[in-house]
Amino acid sequence: MYRIGIDLGGTNIKVGIVNAEDEIIEKYSVKTMVERPYQEIIKDMGAAIFYVLEQAGILKEECVSIGIGSPGTVDAKNGVVLYSNNFNWENIPLVAELKKYINLPIYISNDANCAALGETVAGAAKGCENVILLTLGTGVGGGVVLGGKVFEGGHAGGAELGHTVIVEGGELCTCGRRGCLEGYASATALIRDTRRAAKENPQSIIMKLCNKELDEINGKTPFEAAELGDTIAQDVIDGYIMHLGIGITNMINIFRPDKVLLSGGICNQGEKLTNPLNDAVKGACFGGEKAFIASVERAKLGNDAGIIGAAALGE
Amino acid sequence: MYRIGIDLGGTNIKVGIVNAEDEIIEKYSVKTMVERPYQEIIKDMGAAIFYVLEQAGILKEECVSIGIGSPGTVDAKNGVVLYSNNFNWENIPLVAELKKYINLPIYISNDANCAALGETVAGAAKGCENVILLTLGTGVGGGVVLGGKVFEGGHAGGAELGHTVIVEGGELCTCGRRGCLEGYASATALIRDTRRAAKENPQSIIMKLCNKELDEINGKTPFEAAELGDTIAQDVIDGYIMHLGIGITNMINIFRPDKVLLSGGICNQGEKLTNPLNDAVKGACFGGEKAFIASVERAKLGNDAGIIGAAALGE
Repeated sequence: MYRIGIDLGGTNIKVGIVNAEDEIIEKYSVKTMVERPYQEIIKDMGAAIFYVLEQAGILKEECVSIGIGSPGTVDAKNGVVLYSNNFNWENIPLVAELKKYINLPIYISNDANCAALGETVAGAAKGCENVILLTLGTGVGGGVVLGGKVFEGGHAGGAELGHTVIVEGGELCTCGRRGCLEGYASATALIRDTRRAAKENPQSIIMKLCNKELDEINGKTPFEAAELGDTIAQDVIDGYIMHLGIGITNMINIFRPDKVLLSGGICNQGEKLTNPLNDAVKGACFGGEKAFIASVERAKLGNDAGIIGAAALGE
Repeated sequence: MYRIGIDLGGTNIKVGIVNAEDEIIEKYSVKTMVERPYQEIIKDMGAAIFYVLEQAGILKEECVSIGIGSPGTVDAKNGVVLYSNNFNWENIPLVAELKKYINLPIYISNDANCAALGETVAGAAKGCENVILLTLGTGVGGGVVLGGKVFEGGHAGGAELGHTVIVEGGELCTCGRRGCLEGYASATALIRDTRRAAKENPQSIIMKLCNKELDEINGKTPFEAAELGDTIAQDVIDGYIMHLGIGITNMINIFRPDKVLLSGGICNQGEKLTNPLNDAVKGACFGGEKAFIASVERAKLGNDAGIIGAAALGE
């Protein structure tokens, strides 16, 4: 038997067929074009499912369920996207709408939760029961797996780990508060801090690497500059890691997971990121060496995590 | 049938018999005298159980389980107190030791978790499934109930909600980090801040209330001074509530519980505390009015919460 996983993103709708070994055996991607009415987006989602089944030579009847990972605040019980900023969605009955096209059990969760579940069933946290995933991108998404299942929160909108204040009165966050983890640990924050540092230190290697065009700075720039010996860039990286370490330690003190996984482009820095993070976290968790401290690791399924995790929602 | 609940504290061991309606029908308290060998403390615990059964006229055979709420980091699966600062305990096999005296199923959890469960089964959160409790005392303890059960964390030592940093680089915490919620929302922190404010503002009413003896200041002093119109004291209270509100909002964004309960002496301030907290939290939670926001309420079982919750561990 197979399960269908859908990763609904702002750019693409990715649909995959997942086998009993949690492997994607066929996938297909279609443009989301978020400005369209939601009915059209979901209609395309339905069409993509039938297309990918056809491509794989698998019948609908061989599939036991569909899972959807959606951005925004998801009411998993009722199959509704309560709110998505990127999509400009409010109270969209995603599951009911998709049911019009294909009559299978349909599950839904937040995209970061699906990524966490995907990594748990088939990725960097395979064999683990309790996993925290932080997606370090435009924002900081949080995925929480407890006892092998996605933790949605008591009510919809839980697991917003990026929206926990770690710096009272700090950077203004998109959520309206000041000092959220997202404002320090997102790729956006790293780029912002790198630009600020370059502006304040025009002699820095960062400035050379971006040809004095601050807009050219991206998430790799500080790491490249630091590699070339730039202490200004190294300070930016150290600050980034310090803040991320505070957030991760907070989550360990709350959840005591088996592993903490990080995903997003910044994670391509590999051990340059995870080694100092593990050092920081090990020295900071409550109870010190008397309690189990999760290792901080890079997620490894990349974009497939969302599809595999969404498919696993029905397990 | 009955269950036995034990609230192991630094001063007293409180033992109670709880009926099927989650009511304490008999209780008894014995001095802990924490400096003694743990074997003696646990022996007294056993004796107290038999004494309270005798007093209630209930047979051991009418009891289905024993639950213990213990301070410190508790390994609930193995029945071991991994570490307790107050008791100077490390790796104490509490359950195995108590089993020597009474052969019933014995459950154990952290004391704040037991208080949270007690309030959930019989107190301010009766009928709720997902509850966060913060104990505002010497420190800030955290209790988490998910799906009606205590959440211990994936590994021992979870739910340490007081040990989450909200002010990067802030007050030094007993756990070694800087800026933990505990350093701002404990009674200890409120008293510290009141003393600081009085010292910096010798003209304040706080100074009069304590007869210029800063050591005389307690958790009630700022509220009494504010009541008399002291703006210095009001600022202290506002700061306390602001920080506590940050911590509570963080927990709502993570857990989306049905309710957030507060316990400890400060809660005697009632709505002077909970009204501004609810206002602060309502305006700050992720998703705003689009998502469910738990109300912040005072716990209502007082010291009985620990006994009732401990007894409910076996349910």
